[in-house]
Amino acid sequence: MLLYEALAAQLRGQIAGGVLRAGERLPSIRRLAQAHGVSAATAVQACLQLEREGLASARPRSGYYVRPQAAAPHSPPPRRRAPRTVSNPALHGLLDMLARSDLLPLHAAVPAPALLPGNALAAALSRNLRRHQAQALDYAPPQGHPPLRRMIAQRYAQLATAVSPDEVVVTAGAMEAISLALRTVAGPGDVVLVETPTYHGILQAVAALRLKVVELPHRPGGGLDLARLDALLQHSPVRAAVLVPNFHNPLGSVASDADKRALLANCARHGTVVIEDDIYGDLAWSGERPLPLRHFDERGLVITCGSFSKTLSPGLRIGWLLGAGWTDALVRAKYYATCGNPALPQLALADYLQRHDQERHLRRLRHALSGNARRLRAAVERYWPAGTRCSEPAGGLSLWLQLPPGGDGGALFEAALAEGIGISPGPLFSSRGDYRDHLRLSCGLPWDATLDAALRRLGELVAAQLR
Amino acid sequence: MLLYEALAAQLRGQIAGGVLRAGERLPSIRRLAQAHGVSAATAVQACLQLEREGLASARPRSGYYVRPQAAAPHSPPPRRRAPRTVSNPALHGLLDMLARSDLLPLHAAVPAPALLPGNALAAALSRNLRRHQAQALDYAPPQGHPPLRRMIAQRYAQLATAVSPDEVVVTAGAMEAISLALRTVAGPGDVVLVETPTYHGILQAVAALRLKVVELPHRPGGGLDLARLDALLQHSPVRAAVLVPNFHNPLGSVASDADKRALLANCARHGTVVIEDDIYGDLAWSGERPLPLRHFDERGLVITCGSFSKTLSPGLRIGWLLGAGWTDALVRAKYYATCGNPALPQLALADYLQRHDQERHLRRLRHALSGNARRLRAAVERYWPAGTRCSEPAGGLSLWLQLPPGGDGGALFEAALAEGIGISPGPLFSSRGDYRDHLRLSCGLPWDATLDAALRRLGELVAAQLR
Repeated sequence: MLLYEALAAQLRGQIAGGVLRAGERLPSIRRLAQAHGVSAATAVQACLQLEREGLASARPRSGYYVRPQAAAPHSPPPRRRAPRTVSNPALHGLLDMLARSDLLPLHAAVPAPALLPGNALAAALSRNLRRHQAQALDYAPPQGHPPLRRMIAQRYAQLATAVSPDEVVVTAGAMEAISLALRTVAGPGDVVLVETPTYHGILQAVAALRLKVVELPHRPGGGLDLARLDALLQHSPVRAAVLVPNFHNPLGSVASDADKRALLANCARHGTVVIEDDIYGDLAWSGERPLPLRHFDERGLVITCGSFSKTLSPGLRIGWLLGAGWTDALVRAKYYATCGNPALPQLALADYLQRHDQERHLRRLRHALSGNARRLRAAVERYWPAGTRCSEPAGGLSLWLQLPPGGDGGALFEAALAEGIGISPGPLFSSRGDYRDHLRLSCGLPWDATLDAALRRLGELVAAQLR
Repeated sequence: MLLYEALAAQLRGQIAGGVLRAGERLPSIRRLAQAHGVSAATAVQACLQLEREGLASARPRSGYYVRPQAAAPHSPPPRRRAPRTVSNPALHGLLDMLARSDLLPLHAAVPAPALLPGNALAAALSRNLRRHQAQALDYAPPQGHPPLRRMIAQRYAQLATAVSPDEVVVTAGAMEAISLALRTVAGPGDVVLVETPTYHGILQAVAALRLKVVELPHRPGGGLDLARLDALLQHSPVRAAVLVPNFHNPLGSVASDADKRALLANCARHGTVVIEDDIYGDLAWSGERPLPLRHFDERGLVITCGSFSKTLSPGLRIGWLLGAGWTDALVRAKYYATCGNPALPQLALADYLQRHDQERHLRRLRHALSGNARRLRAAVERYWPAGTRCSEPAGGLSLWLQLPPGGDGGALFEAALAEGIGISPGPLFSSRGDYRDHLRLSCGLPWDATLDAALRRLGELVAAQLR
């Protein structure tokens, strides 16, 4: 790609993503040249290219302005796709469960502590507390400690994905990252696209911001249904899409590289920002890490959310955003949400990541998770009524089960809770309480006799439902 | 107060605060009796009392319902009091400053590390990491660790203010507490009342939620202008008031107990929820801690926000909410904001608070702050142009200064920044960039030669403006 094409692509993405809106002035030729390290001639060429495409127009002695885009061709929206608010009482019961420490936590999509490098992290916390006590107890910069931001950018560099530490924003896990991203790109009444089923945290973030939602089902074989996506985007203006392309929660599916490219092209065409939750990307059981959407993003259209919660420690509450053109706004949102993350966990994690070979730990973790999943699936096959269907993911932390006709995930949740077993009922993963015959199990727990007994008991409880 | 009166007062507060809205059913007699530990007869008496007051009406075989309230007498709203959105570009420049570690931080309303018990806190962090490693690295309960919630409730008990640990929600500082409270009680388009000037974090939280704001100036002599408050509440429906009654930031003023009572009565009459930021309450330089609004709240109308950031450590990012009737909703909001606070700082703080006499530390801290403030004021008097006015607070961390005619707080901010001195310019503390001739200085820094030189230099910079 020529330099001016690359610059034009970035500007196109900013226009598509709403960073630059209709009627707004593009940065001056001088500022474009400076900011992107190109010559003024190249910057002019990029602007001329946008003009040829009808995206910008020149005004004499004033510069280039974003042109209003023609509306998409009008046709009535397909039925049942109208944006709606999230209203799901199943979401409310969840918190009591999360506060209980006495459950066998098959509901929690997180690796068991034994699979995480607790000793090395504890050592890093102690060490940094000793060495940097004053810093550890004081405010951290709102955007996050620079060394940690650098380590996060480095991780993406290993995936051949160019990320500047300047656009990394440290957050309280991916949950806060998603919520800050949504708050930054969308306002009340805007429509957000999510997959269905999807992680209940995404649904709650949408609900908390009074956004409307349209739901995109996966293709019958699994993966994003791009034809349907296109239809959806054509029929209602969708401000942002919040997607989990790698080891989807709860489905476990991974979008192919080709699908990722097509998805971005599609969203760019309709001016839809993509918020990508890549929290499970590092947990490919095969070891072949699928690339984040960000890798394919030539237009500055994607905000990536990540976290150390599923690979190192959930309790440190450290995640991040890759903010692209929204970085400044995201830092402001983060500051006015919590003033910034606590300092000590950031210092400790940056230090830990510098000292330890992350790949080695991940290899062991993936191996363990894959083994857990295999045993869980085998136990479901052995103990649960015939006709129970179970997803076959290639990574992540979730198994998604469908009970035979007559089975009820919500009732199973209640019955299991009474016996000290936590599961996640299907309706949690829908904006309106669908998936009543589904449930999610975590494969974060190492196999042992207790787990075996729990799986057997769950099978009996399902069987009792079918009688 | 008789039992039924106490129960009626609580229900009245829930109605006034919008927990129970017009047309909604009161809890059944049986549930009321159970929940409040009173007899069914007492619960009936309470409902009858509400009926006598015209707040509820009985429907045969169905129960008691909240009656729609008569609208306030209509008269045109006073000029310049129309609710408006927050739009203040001064707020944006702040973050660059907060990321700089090379400034003399006269802008930061926080005690210098030397005034805080860093060693004891670091010891508590190490100890709890050693003893509870697994817990320290795992998710904490979304509402917060029970022992910490109990210690926070105990602190209020020392102020003769009844708080149950069940309604304490641990947050990422008071900033998150305020933001969660606002999100829970108000929605887009709702009007929120704030004092003017006020803490910029409050203004940003209001702006982030797309709420509208009306501003309540203090009385000329200082303190809440209750007559004006009444007028404001009568003329526009105000969903919530976010107030800093104790050692106001930046004014430093304290509302009297009588004013606090009158304020609550006023808000109750108009159905306005009060979100109280009591973050400076423990910093009465005299040692006489003013009571929180919550102490006077008989109607369940107040959500209190607090934090350890100004008394123990800002970097641990631990604050809290007292959620009253909104506790469940606040816990949900917290969970879907960040999944909960990091575990280790909570364990460590609970342990620290159990081992150390908080009063002793606070006594020393207050003494130091009061000394710092005295010296700062003296330096302003000595070095700054005549006509500079300075607040005379009795506690907290802020001095609020007004420059003589011709002085400009924003320009002083820029000039000081260039010399490595941070101050907070007046316009930060207003929804529209008012207070251009004001600034705030922190009295968190112990006096030394550097500070003396900085105050002298600031005085010269002001003098240069007046020339």
